[in-house]
Amino acid sequence: MTHTEPEFKSIVGVFPCQVHWGDCDPAGIIFYPTYFRWMDAATWAFMESVGYGAKRMRAEHLAMPLVSASCDFLAPAEQSDRCEVRSRIVRFGGKSFVLAHEIVRADGAALAKGSETRVWGRFSQGPGTPMKGEPIPESLKALFRAK
Amino acid sequence: MTHTEPEFKSIVGVFPCQVHWGDCDPAGIIFYPTYFRWMDAATWAFMESVGYGAKRMRAEHLAMPLVSASCDFLAPAEQSDRCEVRSRIVRFGGKSFVLAHEIVRADGAALAKGSETRVWGRFSQGPGTPMKGEPIPESLKALFRAK
Amino acid sequence: MTHTEPEFKSIVGVFPCQVHWGDCDPAGIIFYPTYFRWMDAATWAFMESVGYGAKRMRAEHLAMPLVSASCDFLAPAEQSDRCEVRSRIVRFGGKSFVLAHEIVRADGAALAKGSETRVWGRFSQGPGTPMKGEPIPESLKALFRAK
Amino acid sequence: MTHTEPEFKSIVGVFPCQVHWGDCDPAGIIFYPTYFRWMDAATWAFMESVGYGAKRMRAEHLAMPLVSASCDFLAPAEQSDRCEVRSRIVRFGGKSFVLAHEIVRADGAALAKGSETRVWGRFSQGPGTPMKGEPIPESLKALFRAK
Repeated sequence: MTHTEPEFKSIVGVFPCQVHWGDCDPAGIIFYPTYFRWMDAATWAFMESVGYGAKRMRAEHLAMPLVSASCDFLAPAEQSDRCEVRSRIVRFGGKSFVLAHEIVRADGAALAKGSETRVWGRFSQGPGTPMKGEPIPESLKALFRAK
Repeated sequence: MTHTEPEFKSIVGVFPCQVHWGDCDPAGIIFYPTYFRWMDAATWAFMESVGYGAKRMRAEHLAMPLVSASCDFLAPAEQSDRCEVRSRIVRFGGKSFVLAHEIVRADGAALAKGSETRVWGRFSQGPGTPMKGEPIPESLKALFRAK
Repeated sequence: MTHTEPEFKSIVGVFPCQVHWGDCDPAGIIFYPTYFRWMDAATWAFMESVGYGAKRMRAEHLAMPLVSASCDFLAPAEQSDRCEVRSRIVRFGGKSFVLAHEIVRADGAALAKGSETRVWGRFSQGPGTPMKGEPIPESLKALFRAK
Repeated sequence: MTHTEPEFKSIVGVFPCQVHWGDCDPAGIIFYPTYFRWMDAATWAFMESVGYGAKRMRAEHLAMPLVSASCDFLAPAEQSDRCEVRSRIVRFGGKSFVLAHEIVRADGAALAKGSETRVWGRFSQGPGTPMKGEPIPESLKALFRAK
């Protein structure tokens, strides 16, 4: 995987969420790790949208552990703000993939832009047992390709 | 407020939620404090449903801190389970009130039954400043009364 | 197990903790589910103190899922407050046990008093597989008995 | 602030922490947003170590909201692992600063390396009111300079 290869043309997943009282800190705005909780949940929902739901992932011993994550915080969110995470896959490597997440408030304001790099892997005997990365199947990549 | 007074006949609030990967523990089921996070968010949503949204609560310096909370766990929830919290006010005291919450899975299974006792109060000068309980207005109680 | 049997005379576990920025809500005080997170962690630490650490629990497929939990909130905690959870086992039933937790601030102020009822159980094949309650061994009870 | 200026020579803050049951996910390892919770708490502890504790920050209406955060995950952490976050300030800009955090397990294993970029600011009238960035005082920078 080199940086000169063209960006993957991905479908876009949409994960609705809302800022709750307990997601906010004493400054009255969202506590920033909340965005990472949302991005993780959005990734699982995105996988589910192409047929890889949590129960299938578990049954097939599939995993997608993180290599790295980052987020730029553009505007503060407040309690009760309704938002959505818009997720795309921007790159597929051999055994890893990169997701871009945009967190957008209901009024269209961009709140944050994040990224996750994940490995595609399999537990030897189910969750909690050792996990090994494995080549991402072309059939999986195809499910995320924008028509 | 005595225990012989009749239970308040309350409307029912409905707060949809879902069990995410990060809400679960190594046993593969929901980590129990998640239920309390949901009950708190459900209470705020219930207040919003009668016109007391987060922004109004903040503008009027209103607060509803907890006196106590409890929950019975009836069945384990797993990742991706869609649920809802059904909330009622079961008692109004002078300056406090009691909420009953039922957490129900999409297939109708009762997952948990919880309770919160809260004070109705006001911050002297906005969130973060000292808070004092105050009598719950009859107009507020009326908003929750089932027709 | 009846309520007339004498209370179990338990050793006391001590779990130190601190209120962090992200544990607090816009009222500038601890978000209440944090107390339940602490009680759960305190229970695991209490088990570890008698020789049942997380790695042993996992290796032996042991579990201690919740039946119920409750907490009375006595005084608000603020960011940076150093606290400890003092845990005792107040009752051993056949397959369940009850823990009492006191959350105390460094200056001695009682912040909260909580309770957890848990089942003693075993996963059929490790975390994530079906769990069944089993009789609490007398040898385990003995480890918690105050001398 | 340009990237050619030399890196700030910072003292190192140490924030001890432990992986709890509820910090882990169904894969039996730490849920990644936990690292960001730790980095945030470590930053507050680092500030406290030079005299800017939470109570002073609040009294003086000081804030340090995030511009961005990132983390590379190097090795998985498991329940009960004792860790520490080692924090340094790697750059001071006019109104912003960059922290580097290393999360290290008790056995010396590097678990994660993270970064936070924060603004130095002040609430107009205390937490929850509008916040404005302001120049970082030289006296504050001096407190973090390694001797």
